[in-house]
Amino acid sequence: MKRIAILGSTGSIGTQALDVVRNLPEEFSVEVLAANSNVDLFAAQVEEFRPRLAVLADESAYKKLSEKKFEGVEIAGGRQAFIDAAAVDGVDIVLTSMSGFAGLEPTLKAIACGKDIALANKETLVVAGELVIKSAQDYGVKILPVDSEHGAFFQCLQGEDSRTIEKLLLTASGGPFRGKKRADLIDVTVNEVLAHPTWNMGKKITVDSASLVNKGLEVIEAKFLYGVDYNQIQVVVHPQSIVHSMVEFRDGSVIAQLASTDMRLPIQYALTYPRRLPAPVNKLDFWKMKALTFEEPDTETFRGLKFAYEAGKTGGTLPCIFNAANEIAVNAFLRRRIKFLDIYDVIEEAMTSRAVKQNPTLEDLLAEDRATRLFAEKFIENIT
Amino acid sequence: MKRIAILGSTGSIGTQALDVVRNLPEEFSVEVLAANSNVDLFAAQVEEFRPRLAVLADESAYKKLSEKKFEGVEIAGGRQAFIDAAAVDGVDIVLTSMSGFAGLEPTLKAIACGKDIALANKETLVVAGELVIKSAQDYGVKILPVDSEHGAFFQCLQGEDSRTIEKLLLTASGGPFRGKKRADLIDVTVNEVLAHPTWNMGKKITVDSASLVNKGLEVIEAKFLYGVDYNQIQVVVHPQSIVHSMVEFRDGSVIAQLASTDMRLPIQYALTYPRRLPAPVNKLDFWKMKALTFEEPDTETFRGLKFAYEAGKTGGTLPCIFNAANEIAVNAFLRRRIKFLDIYDVIEEAMTSRAVKQNPTLEDLLAEDRATRLFAEKFIENIT
Repeated sequence: MKRIAILGSTGSIGTQALDVVRNLPEEFSVEVLAANSNVDLFAAQVEEFRPRLAVLADESAYKKLSEKKFEGVEIAGGRQAFIDAAAVDGVDIVLTSMSGFAGLEPTLKAIACGKDIALANKETLVVAGELVIKSAQDYGVKILPVDSEHGAFFQCLQGEDSRTIEKLLLTASGGPFRGKKRADLIDVTVNEVLAHPTWNMGKKITVDSASLVNKGLEVIEAKFLYGVDYNQIQVVVHPQSIVHSMVEFRDGSVIAQLASTDMRLPIQYALTYPRRLPAPVNKLDFWKMKALTFEEPDTETFRGLKFAYEAGKTGGTLPCIFNAANEIAVNAFLRRRIKFLDIYDVIEEAMTSRAVKQNPTLEDLLAEDRATRLFAEKFIENIT
Repeated sequence: MKRIAILGSTGSIGTQALDVVRNLPEEFSVEVLAANSNVDLFAAQVEEFRPRLAVLADESAYKKLSEKKFEGVEIAGGRQAFIDAAAVDGVDIVLTSMSGFAGLEPTLKAIACGKDIALANKETLVVAGELVIKSAQDYGVKILPVDSEHGAFFQCLQGEDSRTIEKLLLTASGGPFRGKKRADLIDVTVNEVLAHPTWNMGKKITVDSASLVNKGLEVIEAKFLYGVDYNQIQVVVHPQSIVHSMVEFRDGSVIAQLASTDMRLPIQYALTYPRRLPAPVNKLDFWKMKALTFEEPDTETFRGLKFAYEAGKTGGTLPCIFNAANEIAVNAFLRRRIKFLDIYDVIEEAMTSRAVKQNPTLEDLLAEDRATRLFAEKFIENIT
C-alpha cells in the first residue's frame, strides 16, 4: 500500500487523483490532503478519505474549515503549513497538483525529505528545472510525470536506453483555435478560449492550451525530465489527442503512447508505477477509430511556443520570467482586463525587458518571480 | 561483435540482413551463409562476406558453386548440410530467413545447440509453436522476432510486465485488394496480387498478404511468442503501414511502434538487441505525415484470417494443415494453375478433411505436412 500526500486536492488533477484512489482502495492510503481555499469540496474530501493531516493555504478558508471536526484528522492553515504538508513523515509519494509557481517550494521540500514526486505542477520544472532535477538526484527520489505527454514519454522510455533518444515528439491538440490566424483571434472571448476540443481541464491550463504557452511549458519540462537538447524536442499538432506523445530513437523507430483523453490514466500510472493496474477509463477501439492526423504548429500565430523555446535555450531566470508574465497575463485575460493576443505582448515585454541571471538560486527565482509579476501588472495597467 | 549465421541469405530478408551487416561492420561477423539454389547471388555474398561455411540446399546448385574457390570458406550442399548449418560452433545468433515449412528443422536444431534465434520464418511457430517455445525455454535461448509486426510487439513490451497485456493489436495493410468483395476478386491476376501497396517482399508472402493468410500466420505466431489467448489478438487494418503494431495494457494504455516500411529496421533490432544502433532508414516526418487510419478487417471476403483463428484455436496439427495447404495453393496460383479465390477453397478443403491430432511430435508434423501437401495437390488437380 502506497502512502500518499495530495497537494492541491480540490483542483482538476487533485479530484481525479482521488477518483483513482477511490477505484483502487487497496493500493493507497491518503495521509495528507492540502488545498488552497475551496472549503466545501475540501471538507467533503477530508470526510471521505480521513487523512492524518488536512491543510488549507488560505487563512480565512482554514478558519471556516476549523469550525468542523474530523475525528483523527489534524487541521492546519496558511502558506507555511501548506509547504510543510509536503514533508510529513510516513508518506511515500507526493502528488504536486497545485497550480502555478506556488508549487515550487513544497516540491523542493518533499524532495529534500526523500519523497517520490508525482509531478503535475509543471511550473516547478519550468522555473527551476536544474535545481529540482539536481535535488532529486541528490536525494535519490523519483520524479514521475503526471502530464499526459510526459507520462507518455515516460511509458515509451520503459526498458529503453535514454542515450538512444533521437527526438521527443511532443503532441499538441492545437487547442480551440488551430488553423486560425492572428486576425481571427483579435476579439476571441474567454468562453471561446475555455472551450477546449479534447481535454477537460482547469481554467489556467485551458487558456495556456489555446495560446500554446502550455505546450511551451511542456517543452521546457521535457527538457529537464529527459535531459535532451531543445533541438531534440519537436512539437507535433495532433488534433485528436489520441497519441499522447512519442519518442524517436536513433535507429528511426518511434514508440508512441495512445489512450483516451482521461487524466486518471497518467495519474494512476504515476501513482502505481512501475505497476499497471486496471483503470476505469474508456478503451480505444481501433476498429472504429477516426483518422489520426499530424501537422506542424503555427508558431507565428501562436507565439507562446516560440517564446518557450527562447526562454528554455537562454536558461537562467528567463523561463521564470516567461512563466510569471504568463501567469499574470492569463489572470488578467480571465478577468477580462486584456485580450487574448495581449497575453503574448505581456510575455514578450517581460522577456525582453527583464535582465536574465544565469545559475539562479531558489532565492533568485523567488525574487525574479515577484519582480516579473509586478512588471507584468504594471505593463497591463498601461495598456488597459 | 556478434557472430551470426544467416539461413536463407538470398531471399528478401536475407539480402536485407546482409545490408544491415554491411552498414554495421564493427558489430557482426558472418560465420555461416546458407541458401537454397540462387548460385550467382550466393556466390557474390560468399565472396563479399567470407563466412567460414557456405551451404546450398539444392544439390545441382551446390555443384555449380563448388566449381568456384573461396579462400577459407568451407562449401557444402544438400538438405542435411543446410540443417547442420544451423548448428555450427561459434555462432551466437541464427537468422532463420528461409521461406516456408522447410525452416522448422534447422530452427529446432539451432535452438538445441543453444543459439539465439532471429526468427523471420514464421511457419516455424505456426506449425510447431508449442515445440519451439518449449524447446527455447529448455535450452534458454531467446527468440527475437524479425517480422515488423512481432518486432513491434517486442519493442512495445520492453520494460513491461507481459501479464498486464490486455490485447495485442496486430496491424495489417489490408493488401492490394482492401475494400474489394468476393465478386471483385474472381479474376484478379498474379501481377495484381503481387502489387503490394506498402511493402516490397518475396512472392509467397506477397500473395499471403493479399489473401490475409499472412496476417493469419502472424496471429498464430503472436500467440506463441507472447503467450496470450486468441481472443486477445485483434487484427486492425491500417493501410498506411506506419504503425507496425500495438499493445494494449490492462490500464487502457496503448503502446505502439511506428517506423517507415523498411525491413532492415526490425532485422537490425533483432540482431543488435538489446541495443539500438543508428540505421540508414528514412525517418518519419510527423509534420508531413499523411493521416493514419484504422478499420476492421473483412474476414468474409478475406477468409484466410478466419481460417487461421480456427486453426490456432483448435491447435494440434491443424495449423500445420492450414499452412501446408496454403503453401501448395499459393504455389499453384503463382504458376497460374488456380485462381486467387481458389486458395481459400484449397485451405478450407484440407482443414475440413484432414483429421487433427493433438500434441503432435516433430515426426507427426513432418508426416502431416507431407500428407496435406499431397491432399492439396490432388484437390487442385481435380478442380483444374
